[in-house]
Amino acid sequence: MKILLYVDFDEKDREDFKKQLPDKTELIYKSDISESELADALKDAEILVGNPPVESINEVSSSLKFWQLEHVGFEQYKDVDFKGKVANVGDISAVPVAETIISGVLAFYRGVHSMVRNQLEKKWVGEEAEPSLHILGEKQVIILGSGAISAHAKKVLKAFGCKVQTTAKSDPDADIHSFEDLLKELPETDLVINTLPGNLEDYVSAKFFEAMKEGSLYASVGRGNTTDEEEMIKAIKSGRLLGAVLDVTEVEPLPKSSKLWTMSNVILTQHTGAAHNHRNRDKVEVFVKNIKQYLGGKKMENEVKLSDGY
Amino acid sequence: MKILLYVDFDEKDREDFKKQLPDKTELIYKSDISESELADALKDAEILVGNPPVESINEVSSSLKFWQLEHVGFEQYKDVDFKGKVANVGDISAVPVAETIISGVLAFYRGVHSMVRNQLEKKWVGEEAEPSLHILGEKQVIILGSGAISAHAKKVLKAFGCKVQTTAKSDPDADIHSFEDLLKELPETDLVINTLPGNLEDYVSAKFFEAMKEGSLYASVGRGNTTDEEEMIKAIKSGRLLGAVLDVTEVEPLPKSSKLWTMSNVILTQHTGAAHNHRNRDKVEVFVKNIKQYLGGKKMENEVKLSDGY
Repeated sequence: MKILLYVDFDEKDREDFKKQLPDKTELIYKSDISESELADALKDAEILVGNPPVESINEVSSSLKFWQLEHVGFEQYKDVDFKGKVANVGDISAVPVAETIISGVLAFYRGVHSMVRNQLEKKWVGEEAEPSLHILGEKQVIILGSGAISAHAKKVLKAFGCKVQTTAKSDPDADIHSFEDLLKELPETDLVINTLPGNLEDYVSAKFFEAMKEGSLYASVGRGNTTDEEEMIKAIKSGRLLGAVLDVTEVEPLPKSSKLWTMSNVILTQHTGAAHNHRNRDKVEVFVKNIKQYLGGKKMENEVKLSDGY
Repeated sequence: MKILLYVDFDEKDREDFKKQLPDKTELIYKSDISESELADALKDAEILVGNPPVESINEVSSSLKFWQLEHVGFEQYKDVDFKGKVANVGDISAVPVAETIISGVLAFYRGVHSMVRNQLEKKWVGEEAEPSLHILGEKQVIILGSGAISAHAKKVLKAFGCKVQTTAKSDPDADIHSFEDLLKELPETDLVINTLPGNLEDYVSAKFFEAMKEGSLYASVGRGNTTDEEEMIKAIKSGRLLGAVLDVTEVEPLPKSSKLWTMSNVILTQHTGAAHNHRNRDKVEVFVKNIKQYLGGKKMENEVKLSDGY
């Protein structure tokens, strides 16, 4: 069985991966081969691992049966016509993403972002910072979405002492099920954390920001297009919102012209939510699990439909 | 009954305080009166609230029966000869202090301190930051001390997924009871959080830093004198430690000449651990509780001995 890989694995990752696969598996790393070898591999590989350019995918032959994507999202392949099974990496990034948004929120409330600025100027502010410091554990929180990121964030925020509600249209474990009910809760909510997928364009709209409590904080690790960024900036500039913590923005990299760069009450974590120094270790683990489920003909936990375009 | 107050309460705090005390209580705020009125008040007040200059305390007459301190620490009054009861504010700051040290640690692991620097330069780094990003929830943690700050930090860190041990000489609920046992655990520990009181001078010593794991992180909200700062700086500069998160330093305000200001892998939260925008609300609550316990002749939860000088 041949596996063609479009992933950057070092020697150790390659070894860890190989030893967990059936003995006769041949692993072909795209970075190791020539263009003509790649053309051959695209013709006779049974499994493809990684995110190749869209045009390469259109060249794969019917020998390809299973495509393991490298990330959670796969919007760029929405229109690809592929008949085999496809899996993404499921919840692999839920923990680091949840940590990133909590790190930004907690840094905001405890003033770490301001203290980094003070440090650069060797400026001792000390307890004079008090009026701008908050206790996270006293906050009422709504998390938009009820997936794995939301679940981990909720668990941690509850340990801090927060009251936490989650939203979802149909998940019975969520607390809020409609936009109308959400609007009713916002005036009593100190912190909103967005974890929404990309099919909810501009869900966090002018109407949403208008309903938010005076002095509340907006945080987002959801898709960039789920927030009306211009309306958010207005709500911050007007002083209605305390500020924002954003792992995502409408356009990335954020253009130099964006007002967000110079707003001192905005923390930008630059879409690093999923990033961490053991990420390849986690990828190997998920790839092996999915490939074994594929080979065993079992129902695949992380199977996705390209046309869903998440 | 007269109460003399050395605290900065606004109208709302004063009202909240007064309405919870017995009807005939007379509240005299130091900031409202002249020097001669103050001399009188020092002579006939039964209760003193706040932290006056040491020399004023030596002027109080025997009419003063109860002294409610404004903060947790009271080293400056160690040598004051006062025969009445004394209370501090107990665990009033445990939650914000625990939040501050976790905010610094989490910001460090998820790169918020670096991202604030990038934002100031309008520099998009994005996932190139990956090698320096960690998952807090995978860390093995030791918290030095087992008081209220330690307990709250432990609860939150466990929700993140951390393995957490605490230290204390005699507290049976702590996991590590001697310096020798601690030294044995340090080589396997990713994160050390210091919450120690001031009577453990230079507890975190050269020997301690030498025993710490390569690439581990040091964080402190303990008293400044419990860390050998020069040895800490050496351990960071040599690359043995990943960095440090410090709410406290040996000298505060930190002198402009300190190397800590310019170390990009050090986060300084400038002794803001106890600070937050509802602190007076919390003080009113503790003052009222303590005064009622004093008036009722009950055992006082927050009673302290000045000679302990914590």
